[in-house]
Amino acid sequence: MSVLGLVVEYNPFHNGHLYHLQKAKKLTNPEVTVAVMSGDFVQRGEPAIIDKYARTEMALNAGIDLVVQLPLVYSVQDAGGFALGSIWILSLLGVNEVVFGSESDNLQFLYNLARIVVEEPELYLNRLKVHLKSGVSFPNARKYALRDYLTMNWEGEVPNIEEAGSSNNILGLEYLVAIKRLGSKIRAHSIKRLGADYNDPEFKGSFSSATAIREMVLRGETERLKETVPDFSKEILLREIKNRGAVTLQSMDKLLMGLLRTTSRDEYAQYYGFVEGLDRRFERCAENTGEIQAFLECVKTKRFTFTRIKRLVMNLLFKLTHEVVKNSWDYGPQYIRVLGFDEKGRAYLASIKKKLILPLITAPTQGKNLSRIVSYEGVTVDVFKGQFQRDLRSAAVYSLFQKGSLPDFEYKRHVIYKRG
Amino acid sequence: MSVLGLVVEYNPFHNGHLYHLQKAKKLTNPEVTVAVMSGDFVQRGEPAIIDKYARTEMALNAGIDLVVQLPLVYSVQDAGGFALGSIWILSLLGVNEVVFGSESDNLQFLYNLARIVVEEPELYLNRLKVHLKSGVSFPNARKYALRDYLTMNWEGEVPNIEEAGSSNNILGLEYLVAIKRLGSKIRAHSIKRLGADYNDPEFKGSFSSATAIREMVLRGETERLKETVPDFSKEILLREIKNRGAVTLQSMDKLLMGLLRTTSRDEYAQYYGFVEGLDRRFERCAENTGEIQAFLECVKTKRFTFTRIKRLVMNLLFKLTHEVVKNSWDYGPQYIRVLGFDEKGRAYLASIKKKLILPLITAPTQGKNLSRIVSYEGVTVDVFKGQFQRDLRSAAVYSLFQKGSLPDFEYKRHVIYKRG
Repeated sequence: MSVLGLVVEYNPFHNGHLYHLQKAKKLTNPEVTVAVMSGDFVQRGEPAIIDKYARTEMALNAGIDLVVQLPLVYSVQDAGGFALGSIWILSLLGVNEVVFGSESDNLQFLYNLARIVVEEPELYLNRLKVHLKSGVSFPNARKYALRDYLTMNWEGEVPNIEEAGSSNNILGLEYLVAIKRLGSKIRAHSIKRLGADYNDPEFKGSFSSATAIREMVLRGETERLKETVPDFSKEILLREIKNRGAVTLQSMDKLLMGLLRTTSRDEYAQYYGFVEGLDRRFERCAENTGEIQAFLECVKTKRFTFTRIKRLVMNLLFKLTHEVVKNSWDYGPQYIRVLGFDEKGRAYLASIKKKLILPLITAPTQGKNLSRIVSYEGVTVDVFKGQFQRDLRSAAVYSLFQKGSLPDFEYKRHVIYKRG
Repeated sequence: MSVLGLVVEYNPFHNGHLYHLQKAKKLTNPEVTVAVMSGDFVQRGEPAIIDKYARTEMALNAGIDLVVQLPLVYSVQDAGGFALGSIWILSLLGVNEVVFGSESDNLQFLYNLARIVVEEPELYLNRLKVHLKSGVSFPNARKYALRDYLTMNWEGEVPNIEEAGSSNNILGLEYLVAIKRLGSKIRAHSIKRLGADYNDPEFKGSFSSATAIREMVLRGETERLKETVPDFSKEILLREIKNRGAVTLQSMDKLLMGLLRTTSRDEYAQYYGFVEGLDRRFERCAENTGEIQAFLECVKTKRFTFTRIKRLVMNLLFKLTHEVVKNSWDYGPQYIRVLGFDEKGRAYLASIKKKLILPLITAPTQGKNLSRIVSYEGVTVDVFKGQFQRDLRSAAVYSLFQKGSLPDFEYKRHVIYKRG
């Protein structure tokens, strides 16, 4: 049985996502398609423009059969943690094929890189240290270390290592690394992306990036939306913007700046990722700037990119301590939070439920029933609490920035069931 | 030499304050008048409507010669801590007369109560425990315990104990308690208040409460302001509202709710005042409400009044831990933050400067020079940091909610000097 798994954010769902989904299905001919999706906060270290329920609707409309949530502790981590959590969940759900987008489709080359990253030969590690010391970002240091290693160990012509450094190839590489680390039987495939780069802020017609589409929507220019997102996505997006508003990092200005201005240098140390004098930079920049955008610009260096800083702000907001992150690497995801399914997805879930080593959570109140939770062999209760609490917190914080914020919002939501 | 000291908030300065100031001067005939004033966050557990600099201007215009700041750790505490910090600072500044407002002017009776509170006879303590167990608030439990004690120990007719339970008499009693505890030589006087009760939200003409005046200003009804505040106060208030906006607890909705929604039960325990299941109430109410007013109403009980809950929210926001508060009781204020003076106040400050056991801080950057700070015999460096950092944080948070929020706001402000 072929079970296709995708790692998605759909922020929002657009033509590029539809193309990828259709190609992936053609490639693997799956009986069921499962997506693991970031919740209300995505890998850019930001809130999604519309909430996870609306994005689940988009996924189901597009032909995904089952949507589960990537816990926050993975969704706002760097590419390595994001990929590990995603692949771990897909593996547990019985997925045997994953298809990711990449700037090239030289999968064999990425596999070779993944092997180096996982096996960590000494030469590679030494070069990595050298490049990290020079002050470049981790992805770049790794890229240069891989290049150095390959130059000395590759038979034949070394492929263009720059390919490994683009956002999608970093993720692609990390998926392969995660598969290897977990000893997963998942087969990976890659599809060459069409159109605009992931981060390209310009509207490029039919295949614009999600970034460009969000910018357009935030400027209130929705008339060209139909060129670049499927009809169902446009409908859901406009409905959400009208009823609940768009959520951005800027919406959260007062909360984030208030938090930064009440945190002092020594307090940052407990949160994941605050290294090498970042605490001092954070403190100084929080004193000197009054808005989150200015704060990010103040902290930014060559080594600490905007995305990395935004993720650190999320680590602070949601109290992602070293312990919570480390546990999530060591113990893996502790539950499967189901966001939505169609009939096929529901039947599939029922068919694997008995074999599952993690609790299925279809309504957040189930997370309160610890005696049920601990009966699963894949669960360690403290790790479960650390992850689940952050998911609840992130939903609770997100809903504050939506119009007509409902009390008790998260607890009252149900799985989205798309019938027939 | 007569040095008059007043404990003020001037939120905003109104006719009742002017009346009190004039009467107090008449009573004590001072050579110089010193006020210790709450900073940007006041004893109601809220931000002041306009910032401490504008309120300092009001005080100087009214005829106060020297205005110093009550550190946050005291200003958002209950009446006991508020009075202790205030009296401690006034004592250090050489004040020998304080005049407070009360609902009665039976000072001798309050003195008797203060003695019981400080000396804690066993019968009084036992009755206090009984009343606290019954679930009433601390001020009420104390009032009943005092009544019980007096009924058994008073010679002649017991005065009406209800007098000790009104907001101003609670504070008056606490001033006397603080004077006694500190062994201070300050002489206390009381003046019967005129007009509206402290908390009366209704506009009552010439002697309306500060609460009523704030409500009126927030509704944009400023035409009757001149009836109830002096001209200089009206001018400063309207200028501030126009340029910087009015700050309220509601302005801070997203910050406070975001904070409450990311704090879990076990985390509250480290902050001062979270007792008896309040952590559970806070967690539940944060889940169930989306705005601070609704949150307060959700948490409120007979025992936990609005003001008390708001102060707890401030303890959370500014991380006022048990340790920071306890140290502030044990070690006292660690610096004198000067907010403003006229020529007389400036000369007075110069005359006492050499005898002062605490550093005078006229610009917050001086607080960074720890080698100077520790040279004062009244300073313990950790306690200093704990207090000073909270003052900086509170100013930094406050300025986020003002229009045209300035970067580096607090560090760039100077003492307000009102020249002859």
